[in-house]
Amino acid sequence: MISRLPGPLAPRLPGPMPPRPHGCVALVGAGPGDPELLTRRAATRLAAADLVLYDALIDVRTLELAPSAKRVFVGKRARRPSVPQDFINRLMIRAARRGLNVVRLKGGDPFVFGRGGEEALALAAAGVAFEIVPGVTSAVAAPALAGIPVTHRGLASGFVVVSGHARDAYRPVLDSLAPLSVTVVVLMGLRDAASIASLMIARGWPSSTPVGVVVGASTADAAAWTTTLAGLRHGIETVDGEGPGTLVIGQVVALRGVLAPDSSQRGSHGNNRTA
Amino acid sequence: MISRLPGPLAPRLPGPMPPRPHGCVALVGAGPGDPELLTRRAATRLAAADLVLYDALIDVRTLELAPSAKRVFVGKRARRPSVPQDFINRLMIRAARRGLNVVRLKGGDPFVFGRGGEEALALAAAGVAFEIVPGVTSAVAAPALAGIPVTHRGLASGFVVVSGHARDAYRPVLDSLAPLSVTVVVLMGLRDAASIASLMIARGWPSSTPVGVVVGASTADAAAWTTTLAGLRHGIETVDGEGPGTLVIGQVVALRGVLAPDSSQRGSHGNNRTA
Repeated sequence: MISRLPGPLAPRLPGPMPPRPHGCVALVGAGPGDPELLTRRAATRLAAADLVLYDALIDVRTLELAPSAKRVFVGKRARRPSVPQDFINRLMIRAARRGLNVVRLKGGDPFVFGRGGEEALALAAAGVAFEIVPGVTSAVAAPALAGIPVTHRGLASGFVVVSGHARDAYRPVLDSLAPLSVTVVVLMGLRDAASIASLMIARGWPSSTPVGVVVGASTADAAAWTTTLAGLRHGIETVDGEGPGTLVIGQVVALRGVLAPDSSQRGSHGNNRTA
Repeated sequence: MISRLPGPLAPRLPGPMPPRPHGCVALVGAGPGDPELLTRRAATRLAAADLVLYDALIDVRTLELAPSAKRVFVGKRARRPSVPQDFINRLMIRAARRGLNVVRLKGGDPFVFGRGGEEALALAAAGVAFEIVPGVTSAVAAPALAGIPVTHRGLASGFVVVSGHARDAYRPVLDSLAPLSVTVVVLMGLRDAASIASLMIARGWPSSTPVGVVVGASTADAAAWTTTLAGLRHGIETVDGEGPGTLVIGQVVALRGVLAPDSSQRGSHGNNRTA
C-alpha cells in the first residue's frame, strides 16, 4: 500500500535495487493519560510500531502496548533543556526512510497545541507518508472527568480552548472574549493561573465566576477542586505549577456540585476518583 | 462494587430479598464515526452492555461491539419527531434500576453539545450510578482528518467550538470574538453556513478568511473542501444540510493544502480519503 516516493532527501542508491517501501509515521494522540482512553487505532498503531517517540506524561502502560518498539523519550523534563524540534523531525524522517513504522505519541490530541502541525509539515516536506490519529483531548476530558460539561444548555453554548503556556498566545484570545460568552478552558493553566484570572476580571468577567481546577485528569494522581476567578487571582489555590493542570472557567463549573464522581450518594463505579 | 441505593422511585419490595445491585449507566462518546476511533474503554463498556441507547450517525460496526445488548435507537431521523429527552432519561433510569448495564452512546464526546450534561443530571437526581467515558470530539478530529490542525504556532493560539444548530446559541459567541483571534469550529454547521459567514464578515472577519468544510469525517462518505467566508456566504458551496458537517474557519485552514491526506505526493496509508 505504501509506495516509495522520490523526495529531495531520498537516499541515492548505488545501483539498481528493488524499491523498498518507506515506513510511515503515525502522529497519535494518547488522550489525557489513562491507557483506557486511547483509541483502538492508537493501540493498533502502537502494537505494530518499530519506533515510538513519546512526550512527557505518557503512561508506562501505554508504552507497553508497543512491545516490539524501540521507545525514545523526546519530551520535556524538569530542569533540562527540551529536545529540539528539528531533532525529533529528523529522527522521524530518518526512521521512516529506513522503512520503520514510527509512532509519534503525543498527550491528548496531536493537533491541539504541542506542535503536531509543525511535525506534520516537516513530514510532508520530506515526502514521508504520515497519518493523523486523533485522540481524546484533555480540553474536554479533564473537565468531563471532574464532572464539568464544557457545554450545557442555558449555561454555555460554546467553549474556547487556549494554552496557558505563553502569555503572548493566550492574551489576545482572552482579550477578545465577551465575559461569560463561552466556557474557557486553559490547558497547562496552572503556572499563569493568577495572571489569567486578573486578565479576565479586568476584561469584565465577574470575580465570582466559578473556576474548576483539574490536575492529572484520568491518572492515579487526579485531583480537582473549584474556586472563583477572585480566588484564582489571589493565589489562594496555587499548586505546583509543573503538572498537567487544566482550568475551566464559566458557569458550567457549578454543575460539578452534582456531577462530580465523588459528590453524590451514587454507588461507586468506574472512575471514582476526584477527577 | 455497586451498592443499591434508596431513591424516591426505588421499587417497593414485597418482602425480604437480598439487595440487588443497581446497574450503571455509562455516557459514552463514540467519536466522529469510525469504530477505530472509539476509546478502548468505550469498547469495554459496549462489550459488557445489556442495553445500548444510541443516537443517529453511530456506525453499525460500533453497535456490533455490543453483541449481547438490546440496542435501541433514540436519535433524530429526518422528517420524524425526535425521541423526547424525558423518555430517554426514563429508559436509562428504569434499566439501571433493574440492574442492567446501560450504555448511552453519543456521537463525538458526550459533553460536547448533545445534552450529555442534562442526561447526567437526570441520572444523578435519580440516584443512579453513572460514569462519563470521554470520546474523540469531531470538533478537533473532523478538521484533523481533513489536514487542518485547529491550533498552529503563528496561525492560531486557540480555538472556539460552537454548534450551528441554533442561531440563538452561536450568535452571541461569534459576536464576541475579535476577527482572526482564534480558529472557529462550527459543529452541525452546514445548514446555517451562509448566515454564519454573513455574521462573521459583518463582525469584521476578512471575507477572504479560509474555510474548511468537512462532511462525514472518518466515515466512508467523508468529503472535505475549502472555500472562503465570501464563498460560504454566497452559498456557492451549499450541500445537503442534513449531514454531520463541520466548518473550520481561520488561517489554519491554509495548511490543508500541504497536510490533507490527498494533497501531497505522499504514499497511500491509513485514512487516505479526503477527510
